[in-house]
This record gives sequence, structure tokens and C-alpha cells, in this order.
Amino acid sequence: MKTGDRPSWLETLSLPPPSLSDNTADQERLIGALQKRFGEGAVQLDADLLADLPARLRRWKFDLRCVLVPDGRAWHVCGLTGIKDPAPLCGLAIDLGTTRIVLSLLDLETGQILQEASFDNPQGVIGPDVLTRIHYADQNDGLQNLNRLVIDGLNGMIEALCGQAEIARDRIVLLALAGNTAMTHLFMGLDPHWIIREPYIPVVNRPGIRTARSLGLEVARGAQVIIFPNIGSYFGGDLIAGILYSDLDRREQTALLVDVGTNAEVVLGNRHWMVACAGAAGPALESGVSRIGTTARPGAIDQVRITGPERRFTLRTIEGAPPVGICGSGVIDLAAQLFASGMIDIQGRFVPAACGARLIQSDGEQRLVVAEAETTASGEALTIGQADLDSLIRSKAAMYTILETITEAVGMTPRELEMFYVAGTFGVFIDPRSAITIGMLPDLPLACYRPLGNSSLEGAKKVLTQPSSLERVDGIRDRITYMELNVNQDFMNRFSAAKFLPHTNPGLFPSAPQPQLAQGAPS
Amino acid sequence: MKTGDRPSWLETLSLPPPSLSDNTADQERLIGALQKRFGEGAVQLDADLLADLPARLRRWKFDLRCVLVPDGRAWHVCGLTGIKDPAPLCGLAIDLGTTRIVLSLLDLETGQILQEASFDNPQGVIGPDVLTRIHYADQNDGLQNLNRLVIDGLNGMIEALCGQAEIARDRIVLLALAGNTAMTHLFMGLDPHWIIREPYIPVVNRPGIRTARSLGLEVARGAQVIIFPNIGSYFGGDLIAGILYSDLDRREQTALLVDVGTNAEVVLGNRHWMVACAGAAGPALESGVSRIGTTARPGAIDQVRITGPERRFTLRTIEGAPPVGICGSGVIDLAAQLFASGMIDIQGRFVPAACGARLIQSDGEQRLVVAEAETTASGEALTIGQADLDSLIRSKAAMYTILETITEAVGMTPRELEMFYVAGTFGVFIDPRSAITIGMLPDLPLACYRPLGNSSLEGAKKVLTQPSSLERVDGIRDRITYMELNVNQDFMNRFSAAKFLPHTNPGLFPSAPQPQLAQGAPS
Repeated sequence: MKTGDRPSWLETLSLPPPSLSDNTADQERLIGALQKRFGEGAVQLDADLLADLPARLRRWKFDLRCVLVPDGRAWHVCGLTGIKDPAPLCGLAIDLGTTRIVLSLLDLETGQILQEASFDNPQGVIGPDVLTRIHYADQNDGLQNLNRLVIDGLNGMIEALCGQAEIARDRIVLLALAGNTAMTHLFMGLDPHWIIREPYIPVVNRPGIRTARSLGLEVARGAQVIIFPNIGSYFGGDLIAGILYSDLDRREQTALLVDVGTNAEVVLGNRHWMVACAGAAGPALESGVSRIGTTARPGAIDQVRITGPERRFTLRTIEGAPPVGICGSGVIDLAAQLFASGMIDIQGRFVPAACGARLIQSDGEQRLVVAEAETTASGEALTIGQADLDSLIRSKAAMYTILETITEAVGMTPRELEMFYVAGTFGVFIDPRSAITIGMLPDLPLACYRPLGNSSLEGAKKVLTQPSSLERVDGIRDRITYMELNVNQDFMNRFSAAKFLPHTNPGLFPSAPQPQLAQGAPS
Repeated sequence: MKTGDRPSWLETLSLPPPSLSDNTADQERLIGALQKRFGEGAVQLDADLLADLPARLRRWKFDLRCVLVPDGRAWHVCGLTGIKDPAPLCGLAIDLGTTRIVLSLLDLETGQILQEASFDNPQGVIGPDVLTRIHYADQNDGLQNLNRLVIDGLNGMIEALCGQAEIARDRIVLLALAGNTAMTHLFMGLDPHWIIREPYIPVVNRPGIRTARSLGLEVARGAQVIIFPNIGSYFGGDLIAGILYSDLDRREQTALLVDVGTNAEVVLGNRHWMVACAGAAGPALESGVSRIGTTARPGAIDQVRITGPERRFTLRTIEGAPPVGICGSGVIDLAAQLFASGMIDIQGRFVPAACGARLIQSDGEQRLVVAEAETTASGEALTIGQADLDSLIRSKAAMYTILETITEAVGMTPRELEMFYVAGTFGVFIDPRSAITIGMLPDLPLACYRPLGNSSLEGAKKVLTQPSSLERVDGIRDRITYMELNVNQDFMNRFSAAKFLPHTNPGLFPSAPQPQLAQGAPS
């Protein structure tokens, strides 16, 4: 059953009107015409579309447009409209993030984006991370509560989005949702208990398509939701969507895609093969270092420059707001600049001679002032301690070790990669030069690094606008070989070597700057 | 996709438990094992079965029994239980009659009937017949009300039935429902408006299987309902079930099956071909003649004998209760006896000389006393008028004309039939000799007549206990050629000839008794 080269999910149909000599029922009349068009595969009409089918068919004089999606061996009709109806049939792409949920409403015929919106995942009230929520799901009604939070949140946002776009909610007939495995389970109301327990078994790998009604989403009757599949508990539909968006699965040249969060999820491959793995990278890369860390929001320091012999700090914040903290990409920039300017050594330890007055004593430990009190939003200095730096270095070492392990598993070295995609907000903000400087990402020409932005959302949009990409989704899922990252002695040796700046073997990072010698005092 | 010779819908499975090296999700683990067993066709698990699948699989130590039904090109898992669970997985057969609804609860593994029950179709409060209900469905909320009446009624009855059988409702995982096209539409909440309007188009011919939840039935999560297909507005799933039960579609010899109600629905054929038609037979055959007519209930006169030269009446009533009226089979008996005894003539008109004192004047018309006042339940005489007899004769003439038309359409005459099945209560009570006497049924050897009883319910039970019969249902539906009964001049000529007792050509009914000459007075 192939989607072929259909330009969109819409089909235009003209049914022969019924007569005494052609008294086939309305459902079978519609299905018969569709089956003639598609040639293979059963065609099914959701019961929700049947109730008023007779009245609609007659109002439309049997000329109509409809939306069909394939699942398994059947095509499911999920939307119907009269051929002269001016309002578009719409799709809704959903990036279901642990922290943030992003929606994109689009015209299924033209692919045009009608409206986008995002909101914090309402499950945040239970806990900020996946682990807390999964433990909460074990409590009485815990799973139901988590499910209701996200479904209610989505319904509210869909209503708002449709209001802004001046589109009735019942014009949304096809949805596509990409999220990590745990978030997708909670969205479907599935017990996530075993996701985080050895041997880490999800309830579902291939959710396929589900009716919006069965999920509790308030959109058109009969609407279907394409839910991106996962490879396992630690490699979710958001990554599959990212691969689809990047076209990694279609390229002749080998590329790597990484999504950086608490876990680093990595896929490596080309049109012939793909391997994937996931490993704990530590929280430092997602929301920055402990005390002053923050997600990428207005006021988050996302770029740091330390210039001149006086080591002058120039900070850039998101939207130029007064500093409120430092985000993941900012921390990498900071560490790279501290190292390049000689303020930290190859082990990431403060070099007092170079840090000068910026190194202060606070709560019994040495901390480096990143932003002076008079410049910040709170009026208090933003400082970073040795423990924060150590945490960052462990994260970057884990990251590099994962990349090195997966590339060497296929007989390559990281520096042989021809394309390096970085997913998510992190990918947009990170400066690859800084990441190379600290030895977190391999020393590739900068042109090889491609930020993908919200590739989870973009993948979901792609499925709604290019029917052939739905087949690719299943193909990607089935073609990926998932490698369980065995934290064995070999891995630990690599990890130890990667805990230096940039590495115990600086030859791996020839373009990383040589640190300045400690001299003079910082400004 | 074949059900093959499976002895029941149950499959026993032993899944390999998950491990780090086999971390397939629970759903895919189950589906994979089933796909290995079935070899072809997609296997789908209803979302309702997923929520607690992880906990159940682990409680059962991955040994389980499950029920799967095929639909289109996929197998649907509709029930799961642990291999050691003592309670049976159950099926529920439903005969959805316009007047009466009958339920049969059975063990899906053994086929054993656990409990049966019946109740009046609660839609009766809206109107006794299909037509009234369809008109009511056009009103605001009319369709919803009708749907709610039957669904609520079924849920109440299911609860009572399960209580009596000491079976939890959530052990019912597979249901099969057979009813006429209109009742089936109202059950599914589908607009029946066009069923009774030219060109008589149902919403659905092949409802296939539906989740019990989507229909509002309160049984096991994930349970599926097999809904018998129809051939058109006037040939419903109850008839398809009857064909299945009678094995008409498998016999080498040609047989005819008739279901008599307001409409006479007829199917004629054998294992090689089947033709069907339906035509208005008038209400006389269903609930008897107007004033004293009644459905088959306690006190209904179901047999009449007129004996001896004094024409003594001997009445039999259902359950021997005092007469309350006369049911369809009783009216046929009465007419046959009146004719044989010379009390009515070849045109069905009273012969006063033979009727004697039984013929009285009432409300300005001649009426014949069937049961004297002192013998009846109400204390008033049960009488029949000329108009009642005329109505009966039109009905029997229509019936015979339909039978004659369909048999001659395939180049046979009615007397060449080798088997004649009569469905429903009517078939149980009718005396074929009486029906032959008045020329309503063809003059076949009495051994050819087979009452089927509630063949709609029996067909539904068969589907639940013999998996291979589900394929037959679709095969029967697709193989039947439906003949639109054109009421043309030829039909009207046949009808006119059939309006005599037994017929203008008595040679067609050689075994019908010659009427007694009118002589003497009745007792």
C-alpha cells in the first residue's frame, strides 16, 4: 500500500448518485470509489463519519474531497468536505516536548502554515523531568492525571490556535504528533512504569494512527492522529521525526544527528544504513549548570566572549534582556572562552592567576563571577563554581564518548563525518566552535554543522504535507539498528580521556585554540 | 485472510519474556507472536487493551489466551486473559428485532450457552413499527433518542444476564448482532432517513466489526461487535444470519427461505447461487387481522380446527390461556378451516348458509364469532369481519406471488423446491397444511417445510462459536443477487390469480382439501 507521489492527503471524488438500479449504501458507494482510485488495500470509514454521511453526501450532490491515511493494510478516511466548501481541511502538527509543547496548524491542501503556538507542558506541575512523572504515574490515578493534564492542555491550545486562525476546530482532520517515548506514552494514557526499569520495555513501539476521539482530542469527528513510532524507551518519535526532517535516511553521504538533553540521542547513517544509541549526558547541557542554569528563555545568557589581555566578558542574552541565568549553549560558550583565555586549565579547574578578581569566595567555595550584580535581572551576581564546571565537563565527555563510540562501531572516526545535524533549541543556540574548543563535538569544518531547530515539529509537519513521508517514517523506524550503550571498561577509558579540555589527545581537535598563558589580571 | 478450521476464537500463546537483548515493546511482542501464528494479515490491538497490558502480561508471566477477529485485512485482538484464569471469555449473540430483542450469553471456548434472555425493544415506546421510528428519527434528537433507548436497554439486559450467569460483564469480549437494516442503523446511531425513501439507500451495507465502546455497550474493554451486513434497505442482517444458520448457502439442492412479517423476505438458492427479494405482504401475517389480531403471546389463538358436519370450533391458545386474540399462524389456520368447511367461498366471502348463527351483525357489518364471549379473557366475543378476511387474502396472495415470481425468475416453479425454510416465531407456529389450503405457500410435501425458529439469533450464535462462519457471512452477502420486485402488469396478474382460495388454478394445490358444500347449521 503506497502513498505514491500524491501532492497532498486530499482526494477529490465525484460519486455516481444512487438510483433504483444502483442502490449500494452510502458508505460502500464512497468506499467503492476510493478503492477504484487506490487499487489496493481496504478502505475504512470511521464510525464517527457515518452518522451524518447521508445528509452531507446529498448536500454536496455527491461531489466531495476527502482525506485518507494508511495504517497497516487499510486506508482510513478521516475527513470529508464538499467540493465547494471554502474553508480548508487542516492538519495539526504537535511537538510533544517534556518541557514545551509546540503546535502548528496548516492547510492540508497547500501545506501553508496558518498559525503556530507553544505552551509549557502542563505535566510540569507534577515534575519537570520524565523520571518524576513516571514515578508519579505509579500512584493512584497518577497516570490518568498526567494524561488529562496534557490532553486538556492540548485541547485548550487547539481552541486558542483555531480562534486566532479563524478556523473551526472541526476542520482539523489529520494530526501528527512526535515526542519522546515517555511523553508519547503519557499522551496515549499508557502505563510508562517499565520504560525506566530494566530491561526498559515500552508498551508500544508503533502506535500507528489513532482516532482523535479515542485520545480525547476535540477536533473533527473521525479525525486521525499519526503518532510517530519509537525504537525503544530511550529513542523516541521526536528523533524519528528529526531524521525524516533532515533527510539523513536519504543521503548518500554519512551524517550524524544528535539531540542533546539530559540524554544524548544519536543516530548515524545514510540511505543504506542507520545505527542509533542514547546515553546519559547529564543535565548540564540541557538547562545549564546547577545554580545559575536556565532553559533558553529571555534573559538567558546564550553567548559569552572573553576578549583582550584584560579578559573582558561580553555577554549576550536571549532577546537582550538583563541576565537571569545561563543556558546550555551559554555554558559551553563560557567554558570554551574560559579555557581559551587560560582562566581554567585542561582539567577545567580555575586558574586563580588568570581569573583574578572574578574569582570570589562564596558559601565556602570558589566561584567565578559571570555577570556582576548590577547588570543582572535579580540584582545579584551570577556566578559559577568548580562543581558546575566539573558537571559540564562530565557531560561534554559523555557526549563525545557517545559520539566516538557510535562512529567507531561502524568503523569510522568522528572526524570523518560529512554532516552533523544538531536538533532542538540547543542546536540553534550552540556555537560549534565553542563545542569543539572544549572537545564536546568533533573537530569538523564548521560548514558540516547544521542546526535543525525544532526538527520534531518539522518532521510532524512534513508527514502532514508530504504523504510519501509517512511510509518513510515506518521505514526509518524499521531500518535503524539500535545499539545498547554498554558502559564497559572501554567506554570508561574513552570517557576518562574525554574529561580533559579538549581531550587527552589534542590531535583530535587541531582547530581548537591553544589556551592563553595565565598572565595579568582580568578586567 | 482465513479463519480456517479453528475450533474457537481463542488462541493460547506463550510469549518470550523481554530482556536487554530483546527489548521489543509489549504490544509488538504480542502482535509479533500472533503474526507468526497467523502468517498473513496485520494484527491490531485496540487502544483500550493497551493501558494495562504491561501489568497484565507480567502478572500472567507472558502466558495468555486471546480472542482475535478479522476485519478487512487485519486481525483485531478483542480479548485477553491469563492462561490460568478460571472465568471463561464470553460471547454475546444479539437478535435485534423490531418488537423483541433476544440475547444469548455463551462460553467462547466451549460454545456452551450460559444464559439467555429477551425483552421488548424499548424503541416500542416511540412506535411499534420501523416506519414510525424512522419518521421520528428525523425530529430533533430523534435519532439520538432511539439509539439511546436500544443501547440503554441492551446495557441493562446485559447486566441482568451476567448477574444471572454469575459472569462479570468484562468477560464479554466478542458480540454478534443480527437485525433488519433499519434496526441495525438505529443501533449504530446512523441516519435511517433514506432507507424508506426512493431509491432506498442505507448508510451502510457492511458494518463489519465495531468496538463495543464506540457503540456505547458496557462490556469488556477492547470488545468487538460483529454486525451482520445487509443487502439493502429491505434485506437485513437477520436474513443473512438465517441463511447462515440454515446452511442454505452450502446445500447442493435448491432451497427457499422466507421470513414473514409486514414484509416477506425471501431468499432462494443453493451452494452455487442465491437470489433474494422482499415485498410488502401486509400486516395480516405478522400480528393477525386488525381488531382481534395479536402477536404470538400467551392467550393468542394459534390453531383453529372446525370439525364435523356441525362445524364445531376447537381453538388452541399459546400456553392454554383464555383467548386474547389471534396471531398470524392462527389466522391462516382459521381461514383454511373456514374454507375447508365451506364457511367462506373461493373469494374468501362468508357463506351465510354455512356460517349460520356464528355470523352476527356488529357495527353495521357481518362478523363471524371465533371465540364466544364467555370463553375469552376480556369477556367479549372475538370476531372477524369481511374486511379482515380480505386483508388476509391480499397478504397471502402477495406472499404467494412473491414466491412464484422469484422461483420463476430462476426458471423453476414453486413446487420444484426441495426445502422450504420458514424463519421466526411465525415459522414455528404456522401449520403448513393450512398455508397450502389457502394457497399461501406452495403445495410441497410437508416434510419439505422446516421451521427455523429464531434463525437470526442462531446465526449470531454460530458466528461466535464457529470462526469459519464469519467468512461465510461476507460470502453470503456478496453472493446474493437481489431482485428489485417490480410491481408490473405481470406481477399484478399473478397477484389477481392468487387472490382466490387456493388460486384460480387449483391444479397448483392438488393436496388442498375440496371445500365442504354449505349444508346444515354450524354448532
